Amino acid sequence: MALRVAVLGASGYGGAGLIERLRSHPDVTLAALASRQFLGQPIDAAWPHVAGLVPLRFVDSDDAIAAADLVFCATPHGATAPLVEAARTAGKRVVDLSADFRLDADTYATWYGPHPHPERIGEAVYGLPELHRSELPGATIVASPGCNATAATLALAPLAAAGLLGDVPVVTIVTGASGAGRATDLGLHYPELNENARPYKVAGTHRHTGEIEVALGRVAAQGKDGRSRGPSERVRIAFNPVLVPMNRGILATAVACPQGVSLNDRDLLERYRDFFDGDPCIVVQADLPQTKAVAGSDRAVVSVRWDERSDAIVAMCAIDNLGKGAAGQAVQGMNLALGVKETTGLRMEGQWP
Amino acid sequence: MALRVAVLGASGYGGAGLIERLRSHPDVTLAALASRQFLGQPIDAAWPHVAGLVPLRFVDSDDAIAAADLVFCATPHGATAPLVEAARTAGKRVVDLSADFRLDADTYATWYGPHPHPERIGEAVYGLPELHRSELPGATIVASPGCNATAATLALAPLAAAGLLGDVPVVTIVTGASGAGRATDLGLHYPELNENARPYKVAGTHRHTGEIEVALGRVAAQGKDGRSRGPSERVRIAFNPVLVPMNRGILATAVACPQGVSLNDRDLLERYRDFFDGDPCIVVQADLPQTKAVAGSDRAVVSVRWDERSDAIVAMCAIDNLGKGAAGQAVQGMNLALGVKETTGLRMEGQWP
Amino acid sequence: MALRVAVLGASGYGGAGLIERLRSHPDVTLAALASRQFLGQPIDAAWPHVAGLVPLRFVDSDDAIAAADLVFCATPHGATAPLVEAARTAGKRVVDLSADFRLDADTYATWYGPHPHPERIGEAVYGLPELHRSELPGATIVASPGCNATAATLALAPLAAAGLLGDVPVVTIVTGASGAGRATDLGLHYPELNENARPYKVAGTHRHTGEIEVALGRVAAQGKDGRSRGPSERVRIAFNPVLVPMNRGILATAVACPQGVSLNDRDLLERYRDFFDGDPCIVVQADLPQTKAVAGSDRAVVSVRWDERSDAIVAMCAIDNLGKGAAGQAVQGMNLALGVKETTGLRMEGQWP
Amino acid sequence: MALRVAVLGASGYGGAGLIERLRSHPDVTLAALASRQFLGQPIDAAWPHVAGLVPLRFVDSDDAIAAADLVFCATPHGATAPLVEAARTAGKRVVDLSADFRLDADTYATWYGPHPHPERIGEAVYGLPELHRSELPGATIVASPGCNATAATLALAPLAAAGLLGDVPVVTIVTGASGAGRATDLGLHYPELNENARPYKVAGTHRHTGEIEVALGRVAAQGKDGRSRGPSERVRIAFNPVLVPMNRGILATAVACPQGVSLNDRDLLERYRDFFDGDPCIVVQADLPQTKAVAGSDRAVVSVRWDERSDAIVAMCAIDNLGKGAAGQAVQGMNLALGVKETTGLRMEGQWP
Repeated sequence: MALRVAVLGASGYGGAGLIERLRSHPDVTLAALASRQFLGQPIDAAWPHVAGLVPLRFVDSDDAIAAADLVFCATPHGATAPLVEAARTAGKRVVDLSADFRLDADTYATWYGPHPHPERIGEAVYGLPELHRSELPGATIVASPGCNATAATLALAPLAAAGLLGDVPVVTIVTGASGAGRATDLGLHYPELNENARPYKVAGTHRHTGEIEVALGRVAAQGKDGRSRGPSERVRIAFNPVLVPMNRGILATAVACPQGVSLNDRDLLERYRDFFDGDPCIVVQADLPQTKAVAGSDRAVVSVRWDERSDAIVAMCAIDNLGKGAAGQAVQGMNLALGVKETTGLRMEGQWP
Repeated sequence: MALRVAVLGASGYGGAGLIERLRSHPDVTLAALASRQFLGQPIDAAWPHVAGLVPLRFVDSDDAIAAADLVFCATPHGATAPLVEAARTAGKRVVDLSADFRLDADTYATWYGPHPHPERIGEAVYGLPELHRSELPGATIVASPGCNATAATLALAPLAAAGLLGDVPVVTIVTGASGAGRATDLGLHYPELNENARPYKVAGTHRHTGEIEVALGRVAAQGKDGRSRGPSERVRIAFNPVLVPMNRGILATAVACPQGVSLNDRDLLERYRDFFDGDPCIVVQADLPQTKAVAGSDRAVVSVRWDERSDAIVAMCAIDNLGKGAAGQAVQGMNLALGVKETTGLRMEGQWP
Repeated sequence: MALRVAVLGASGYGGAGLIERLRSHPDVTLAALASRQFLGQPIDAAWPHVAGLVPLRFVDSDDAIAAADLVFCATPHGATAPLVEAARTAGKRVVDLSADFRLDADTYATWYGPHPHPERIGEAVYGLPELHRSELPGATIVASPGCNATAATLALAPLAAAGLLGDVPVVTIVTGASGAGRATDLGLHYPELNENARPYKVAGTHRHTGEIEVALGRVAAQGKDGRSRGPSERVRIAFNPVLVPMNRGILATAVACPQGVSLNDRDLLERYRDFFDGDPCIVVQADLPQTKAVAGSDRAVVSVRWDERSDAIVAMCAIDNLGKGAAGQAVQGMNLALGVKETTGLRMEGQWP
Repeated sequence: MALRVAVLGASGYGGAGLIERLRSHPDVTLAALASRQFLGQPIDAAWPHVAGLVPLRFVDSDDAIAAADLVFCATPHGATAPLVEAARTAGKRVVDLSADFRLDADTYATWYGPHPHPERIGEAVYGLPELHRSELPGATIVASPGCNATAATLALAPLAAAGLLGDVPVVTIVTGASGAGRATDLGLHYPELNENARPYKVAGTHRHTGEIEVALGRVAAQGKDGRSRGPSERVRIAFNPVLVPMNRGILATAVACPQGVSLNDRDLLERYRDFFDGDPCIVVQADLPQTKAVAGSDRAVVSVRWDERSDAIVAMCAIDNLGKGAAGQAVQGMNLALGVKETTGLRMEGQWP
């Protein structure tokens, strides 16, 4: 019998992505969708693109948790930990797309304030399958990574594993608008963002900075297939994101300057291919990544170059922030937690253009 | 009597910007516009937005040079040097928007191949007014800077002057599509670029890399108001550009990691304000720059932050690649060369949204 | 001595356009800018693109009215009539960009509800200079037209004058997002509008429908140069607007099916050229209009074709909704009211691309 | 055993959509992809988004036809008829996305010139499943409709069936850029189309005009489920398309003015619901359609309103020009021709945003 799943925060963009993927996932049944804003309304009221396809009405979180065996939380950080606690107390499994179970309690406190349920954190597995695949089966809480963290970590993980991060890797993220969510805001009013490129939360103030540093630190200490609560080296990155006028897509451009090494494109690429060997959602290629190649897809495209003028490595990763950066990766995490084939229900190829 | 000016390459985007500014410049008369592609046709055939406003037809370069006292070259690199040579031989002044007179012969050869008229290079003044203001009056060849070079150099010049560039500053450029010119290309076909972020010429292969290094090297050696042929320190940058779906605008995000210093936002900003004091086209501000603030404008917005996590300086600059990055700066250079008020004919505020 | 002008609603897009044009208008001084939202803050807080250029702080409407000889109202309909009343009572001239003084009291009531100051309406002149040029000099209230009304009326006015509107002209408007103003709204949240074309207020429910019908009715009754309170024939149009993902621009496509006539492109174009002869802000051309040709400009481009398959006239008009559709036309109206050259301070050519 | 299918013109946008859908279609095997431009290259060279997913290289048309049981032609009109002839001669079934088999020989000649294989036309079934469902099973040539024709015909078909088209329905199409194909063209160069709305082929000169008139004429004569070679009434429409800056999507706004009837929204909507009852790819709704609701989807959204001011019906249809307007509809046609469930392999919900 199919597992019953619910989505909390189902009227946000993360929720839309989950509905799109779970609706036709062969191993689950979409049992309940929760939304405070659209409570009691049919799904079509929030999502015109599934008109007539999802015969449900939005319920509240309690009812959604009660109706399901597994709960996706696509809700804001801070507000999510109590929902996870409630779901776990009721014996439900959780895939959490918020930040609430990605970090240990101390690191969480640095970026988000005191954690309301620190005792639950030990249960959570960081849901980046490429770095935690052997740890995910059976996980009761999958802490699905942030979109920027996914892109930056995938770009740099092979270097972290090889001790090639140098002193302070510089990560610049170009990101589309949907990552900021569906809430209105003057900065995301169409005429304000269209024809505009705008940095935000630069100079180490973006909360994903800490998540990336921890994720890369684990790879540096444990190698590719690590434990969420295992050892981590100290890593510092200079992280700066830029918002640009597109709906979907993150392109991470990371520059690392390891001391005293001389490399070349071919060797670097080979190293990346080896590192991601066997990862069905990672494309390693010589051509530069572009976000269109992953629009609507749950895969990531990674490439790497050697800059011989400045003795620097340039590593790049393109993802769809709502695919591999959110809903797709959450479903991938669920699949692994459940022991289902990793790519079930995922969108491999998106669409062009 | 007004100076007669001509524009070569007047059917490209740089040409459009020049027509828009020169048409109403009080000290010059638009005497001739040259275009190979639109030869003999009225100006409206190339530029619907000036329909009825410019009572000229496109002529060839020879005729345009003959008709003018001063010639703007908005023509491709390589093809421009012979045009400049012809104009100078005829005793005409030149403002060159191409790369052909920005670099010394050796550096030019590294990036573009052998220079066809190296003996003319000594005559040229690098037309970044903020760094060469006292050298521009009377210049017979103004070598107007590249758009990416303008943004990167303005972002980092105050640090170069203060010895704060560190080992290898990392410069990531986000750029709109018009910088690639008006020639059709599959990568700039609307559906291919819209909803796409795409790196290109990364890892030190973009030709503006050399121009930026030289410009910053001069500032490091000579300070703010330097000589184009004066001394230069060796500077290396890691330069990576990303094309994003917008028409206009460049945002440069530069990260410098000077060793053994600890700084803060306020001091850095004060340093930037001091450096650009008296520059009418530079806005130094605490708020992060955004390209919309300079769309249609000939000003640059600059800001700077201290990243205390990674001991790094984040310097940012936003320009309109067709304004301060091309036509606006070229007119600014002409004004200074002619002894006219620097901002005459420039567009200070553009438009919002 | 320059006339002192104030702008009410100066933190909206109409306000930005007025600031951009009035700041450098040779016959006026920008005396005061009012904004409730930004009250007390410097202008740069609302408008980064004029940073440092407008040495004022936002004041309230009373203070703005007191400080000026002429007041621009870029405020919402309904809220504007009392501001106009206050300004007129204080003896100030008014250019009103809202709908409040465009219609007679009865028509106004049909679309907007009861008019709060119907006795003032007789004073107002409809500020479409091409149709009311001889009535504007000396006007104390200029009722500047709506953006959609401007595009539709200019497209069809020559047909109205010639009795060629047929039974029910069908007007379809394609419009950019800035026409909806600067207030946040989910429908204008960037990811919701980008990659979306969305009809709204179709089937005769858009308030500009009435304004267009009245304007065309006056032309049908009085010809090109009419009186705002003069006779009007009854005209009915089928008006349907579609919102598309761009910042600026309106393209009106109007189809008229006059009975029993057979026309051709050349004669129609000639008729349009004659009608708009002497109008400095109208470009009549054989090529189809496009909004880019008027982006940032205060001109309108008009063209017309004969559809021989269906015996229909296709008339098209492109404007920048914030230029000829708002701020530009308001300044044009002010110029005529003051007896200043009609195009003073206007932007003729905008920019490309 | 799965049917072997080939795609000719597989490096164009129609080809991409077919690859995306056919790759995972359970009843077919993707046997060959033909492209002249990418001949001999791997599929990834043309389509980065399917990197590693389609283990084929582009072949020429002859080889592709030979390798398949059924051939999709996503090739230009004129060039396609000979390919269809070759495929049919070899006994292969054909789904043709070009215009070559949509019209009878005379009508074809009016719009496209003499038909090279008029004797084959009788074999073709017009592949708009909603109007030809009972005719499609067993069809050897499915002539898949044009994108604009699909949108306009679906919007107006219920009115045609009810005799409510009036004299000359006015159809205005707003369309994204991908409909123009993947060939570079200055008008589709990113900076030229972005921030631009541009009418093209207006006043009855667009070739889809004839196709729409014929399709509606058949409905008027035969009702909903007609024969491609059955009787047709004479219908004339006034068709005007406008290109706007988006990748995907067509919104058709059609205004019909039937004489002497008075209708209302509810009755019209009911009529539409009845007409499209049982059509799995049509959503009839009271809310206005928007293209985002069908982006990436193979469904159409239709709505209708009564304009009581002008006694007009406003009918609207939104489709993805590459989904229901091209690849999706072609696969839908194939499914019906083969007797497979109509929606197999189709994308019902696309994605939001």
